[in-house]
Amino acid sequence: MSLITFQPSSKSIAVPPNTELLDAARQAGVEIEASCGGKGTCGKCVVRVVAGRVDASSSLGILSADMVAAGTVLACRTRVGDTPLTVEVPEASGREGVRIAGGDETELVRGELLPRKWEYEPLAIKWLFNVPAPQPEDGLSDLDRLTRSIQRDWGHLAVLLPLAVLRTLADALRAQGGVVSVSLIRAADQIHVIKVEPGDQTARHYGIAVDIGTTTIAVQLVDLASARILGTRSDYNEQVGCGLDVISRINYARRPERLEELRTRVLGTVNRLVQQVAQQNSVAPAEICNAVVSGNTTMLHLLLGLKPEYIRLEPYVPTLYEVPYLTAAEVGIGINPESWVCFSPCVGSYVGGDITAGLLCTDLATDTEEINLFIDIGTNGELVVGNRDFLLACACSAGPAFEGGGITCGMRAAIGAIERVEVDPATGAPRFWTIGGVKPKGICGSGMIALLAELLRTGWIDASGKLDRSRPSPTIRIEGRHAIYLLAPMGESGADHPMEVTELDIENIIRAKAAIYAACALLLQHAGIAFTDLAHVYIGGGFGRFLDLEKAATIGLVPDLPRERFQYIGNSSLMGSYIVLVSQEYRRRQLELAHRMTYIDLSAEPGYMDQYTAALFLPHTDRRLFPSVCLQASGAEAGKGA
Amino acid sequence: MSLITFQPSSKSIAVPPNTELLDAARQAGVEIEASCGGKGTCGKCVVRVVAGRVDASSSLGILSADMVAAGTVLACRTRVGDTPLTVEVPEASGREGVRIAGGDETELVRGELLPRKWEYEPLAIKWLFNVPAPQPEDGLSDLDRLTRSIQRDWGHLAVLLPLAVLRTLADALRAQGGVVSVSLIRAADQIHVIKVEPGDQTARHYGIAVDIGTTTIAVQLVDLASARILGTRSDYNEQVGCGLDVISRINYARRPERLEELRTRVLGTVNRLVQQVAQQNSVAPAEICNAVVSGNTTMLHLLLGLKPEYIRLEPYVPTLYEVPYLTAAEVGIGINPESWVCFSPCVGSYVGGDITAGLLCTDLATDTEEINLFIDIGTNGELVVGNRDFLLACACSAGPAFEGGGITCGMRAAIGAIERVEVDPATGAPRFWTIGGVKPKGICGSGMIALLAELLRTGWIDASGKLDRSRPSPTIRIEGRHAIYLLAPMGESGADHPMEVTELDIENIIRAKAAIYAACALLLQHAGIAFTDLAHVYIGGGFGRFLDLEKAATIGLVPDLPRERFQYIGNSSLMGSYIVLVSQEYRRRQLELAHRMTYIDLSAEPGYMDQYTAALFLPHTDRRLFPSVCLQASGAEAGKGA
Repeated sequence: MSLITFQPSSKSIAVPPNTELLDAARQAGVEIEASCGGKGTCGKCVVRVVAGRVDASSSLGILSADMVAAGTVLACRTRVGDTPLTVEVPEASGREGVRIAGGDETELVRGELLPRKWEYEPLAIKWLFNVPAPQPEDGLSDLDRLTRSIQRDWGHLAVLLPLAVLRTLADALRAQGGVVSVSLIRAADQIHVIKVEPGDQTARHYGIAVDIGTTTIAVQLVDLASARILGTRSDYNEQVGCGLDVISRINYARRPERLEELRTRVLGTVNRLVQQVAQQNSVAPAEICNAVVSGNTTMLHLLLGLKPEYIRLEPYVPTLYEVPYLTAAEVGIGINPESWVCFSPCVGSYVGGDITAGLLCTDLATDTEEINLFIDIGTNGELVVGNRDFLLACACSAGPAFEGGGITCGMRAAIGAIERVEVDPATGAPRFWTIGGVKPKGICGSGMIALLAELLRTGWIDASGKLDRSRPSPTIRIEGRHAIYLLAPMGESGADHPMEVTELDIENIIRAKAAIYAACALLLQHAGIAFTDLAHVYIGGGFGRFLDLEKAATIGLVPDLPRERFQYIGNSSLMGSYIVLVSQEYRRRQLELAHRMTYIDLSAEPGYMDQYTAALFLPHTDRRLFPSVCLQASGAEAGKGA
Repeated sequence: MSLITFQPSSKSIAVPPNTELLDAARQAGVEIEASCGGKGTCGKCVVRVVAGRVDASSSLGILSADMVAAGTVLACRTRVGDTPLTVEVPEASGREGVRIAGGDETELVRGELLPRKWEYEPLAIKWLFNVPAPQPEDGLSDLDRLTRSIQRDWGHLAVLLPLAVLRTLADALRAQGGVVSVSLIRAADQIHVIKVEPGDQTARHYGIAVDIGTTTIAVQLVDLASARILGTRSDYNEQVGCGLDVISRINYARRPERLEELRTRVLGTVNRLVQQVAQQNSVAPAEICNAVVSGNTTMLHLLLGLKPEYIRLEPYVPTLYEVPYLTAAEVGIGINPESWVCFSPCVGSYVGGDITAGLLCTDLATDTEEINLFIDIGTNGELVVGNRDFLLACACSAGPAFEGGGITCGMRAAIGAIERVEVDPATGAPRFWTIGGVKPKGICGSGMIALLAELLRTGWIDASGKLDRSRPSPTIRIEGRHAIYLLAPMGESGADHPMEVTELDIENIIRAKAAIYAACALLLQHAGIAFTDLAHVYIGGGFGRFLDLEKAATIGLVPDLPRERFQYIGNSSLMGSYIVLVSQEYRRRQLELAHRMTYIDLSAEPGYMDQYTAALFLPHTDRRLFPSVCLQASGAEAGKGA
């Protein structure tokens, strides 16, 4: 065994020779990012060996020989020798959970698309029973009497109680003269009892809606008695330290203990958010008796500890698309352990439950002949087009840029995020607004879109995203071959660094928007539909309270259509989870949508790369596709020329 | 906190002032018996405080003031003060798990009562499937393909897989080209999958039958493919340290942590026996996919961690009589965690699953008009009389004497137990046989019955169980007011003490047999039946391989009927568990028997005490009830007179 000490934390651990340095760090509780999932390509896990010897032969590749010789190695490609080591770990960028400002996300979705009062019918129900007192001669146990009471109200179905509930039964039935509140789930011809409480507790009946994104996780607490949303909290998925996109995560999970680590990390985030939102509303986790979880196919597999490898290996067949009901105890979610956890169904390896949930917030889930398009912009972009007769779905890899990933000052749409920007045409100087109106801590997706649109409109960047070096501006700084745009100097920043956007950041956004647009174009081509045939375009994603669709079209993220056809529906995966949580009717609709959907694998499409490359400009190489946008832009250029 | 050190083990623990000494010992891992369940009446938990001060005011009662002053206290009635203590604990009598000699217990049951080959239909089945390979375009996940394969063979039922099995699915389906062995349970209109293994593993398919007695636990490993019994192991229930009978255990369990302790103890014994019998047969616990457990109502509640208090409080209504299927993981039994654990149904607070299991080994479970009686002799005695038209059941408290409890040299029917005795009429000298033919380690129930019958037959004890002091015998020793019978001196003993039986031991057996006989008489009186109306009398109990029914009648344990009407069926609770494990048909029969049975509460019967008192003689105060026995006895007395 060799003793490995990590600095600056001074955490240490003894591991056998040949252990990967990344694993040693994990075991010692030292956080090292591995965005590429341990493939040695992202360079995020760079550490410095300050004492001792390691086998860093495979660290080469993205590192220079000089660096390796000086002790700089990739933790994921370096193995421990038989001597003690001291390893210096660069400080990770701090991440903190922030509650999204503003309230009810249902505002984002058109009211007529949400379940109506008479459609409120949660899976989990809380019901008051008056169970007769025990009698000496009738031969009926506590369980028998409760079962009969339930069957009297709910019909002669099998009544199932888990052992944990059986253990509370004797006292619960005797505490208030047999008056008990029973949390139950009626499924097929069985009634599953989740909780039995003495007295009338029917007013306290809660559920959670959960969106598990590759980058961001959101949890919403819902009062199941009234279908009211009590609170929402979101945070980065703790898994981001193990890979920024699903492919990196799948690579990272190739060893069982790493799959388990990913599972523990995502549960860590979910459970922290559950605890926070419950505490904030004075709800005990044990009072939460149902959860609906939506996430992409990989997130689902990682949450459940299912081997994700076959998602990315031909023929791309995962363990499951539809999850049978599992209990919270089985899954590991910190609510009432006997609660059922329901999952939005997945459709393909890359079209998951986030999409079948999101669709419920759109006209695509209604009986309309009009053709609609749904674009969910996350780390993976997913798109669905269709009407009551057909549904075509596809996915593309946008990367985490719209959620702040890979952007120098990027952050999620949380308090302190720059969400809107204007640029002065003459000086290039920015004016911006942050969520919560505080000093800026970073810039979120909607902020980046606004910034790029404004810079393009005012001519401060060109179609390829390069900043204008020809005109002097106090906000543009040149460093070598790169130019950097200053949003806020140190003094006006809410973080410990100035707010800057580099040309690399701009490139990342362009790549992300190009992936989405190309998928969009190809999907419609498949369906034999022109953009102008679309009645509505729904945009979902974690951009915060609003996304300026004018600006999204300006940079070519979405097609150039009359603005009234667009609707931004926010985190539609979370909202869809909420809808399923409160309405069984919508749950049935969701399963039916999933079964009707046809998945198109874009990676097998020869045209995709062409479409993508053509979209790597602002707004597009083919300016005819964005007539109204390009009209503005020429106006700006004309202005600049003057 | 006060530091308490226990001698001779030197184990110590720090506890807050006012902690009960018994609890401190338990926490320190020191075994102290508390046969009365901590009520301060049995005196088994006597310890000596050798240093420090305690509050022993409530130790008085069964201890003299002098004893308490000298430091002798009851651990269950003594509270720790605020000073360190040193406490001397008397060494407990060693208990060791011994496999019962001799083989197959099915020999004890009439062959025609056991399930026949065509009735073999275990609940848990292992089936071979050939699941198609994953295909790129069919949209079927691993789970979808397995579900379809199962539904093709078993009909269109819902197929449920627990998360643990889902986690193994991807690799299992790919390891051997889709050939998998699936362990499953078909219940109602659902199929529950317990395990999926690659390749043909259908020959390895096991279950366990479990009998949980108040004093003794037995576990039987069964090959479910052939219904063959592979091995049986039994041992004392680890709970005996917390009370010798069910009432003491219920008292002991009055605090939640003690209920949990009792649960842990019984699981400790069960799981040790499971491990032993599995290891002995080279079976992995994960290969055991079903368990059937039979035990009395209190044992069931304690095993499941259900509050047993209401069993002994008016109106005597427990949490449950019939247990819904639970998984081994929920219950805590160390077999495949997804296995179902099935429980024999209980009928009343004191007529439990051991009886509904035992009945399956008798004609009472058949469609006969003949009236039969089943007596299960354990720590609780239970009796059922009836035929196809009626079934009456009752219970009585016999105590653990027949299983060796409360008998100076008492032990279970295990290797080294004296199981048969003869007494020389002239000298009173014994001749005995032990299980396994080794030196005697103790005497079991059948040995005690034989000894008493022989001593009575030869006139060495009188009808009240007193040894004859009038004739000198090398085997009888007088100590104060008590006489002691020597079975084997130190030199011939297999233990570290001579084999002796005291008059107190004899009294214990008489009380136990009187309880059984009185219940018997009263039950038949209720049914309006004379003993002579009985076609068969079945005796069950853990007496070992055989019980000499001649001798049982001699002491008045069973009624004096022609011997051919009796059958000793051994541990019928265990055998009934086995029967249910291998035959669903018998499981249905068992449930039907339980529903048909009427429970009579003897504690509410005014006549019971009279019957009991009348039976506190050998064989009975009313000698006319035992004509053939008393004929022999008079012969012996005549011989003695000669």
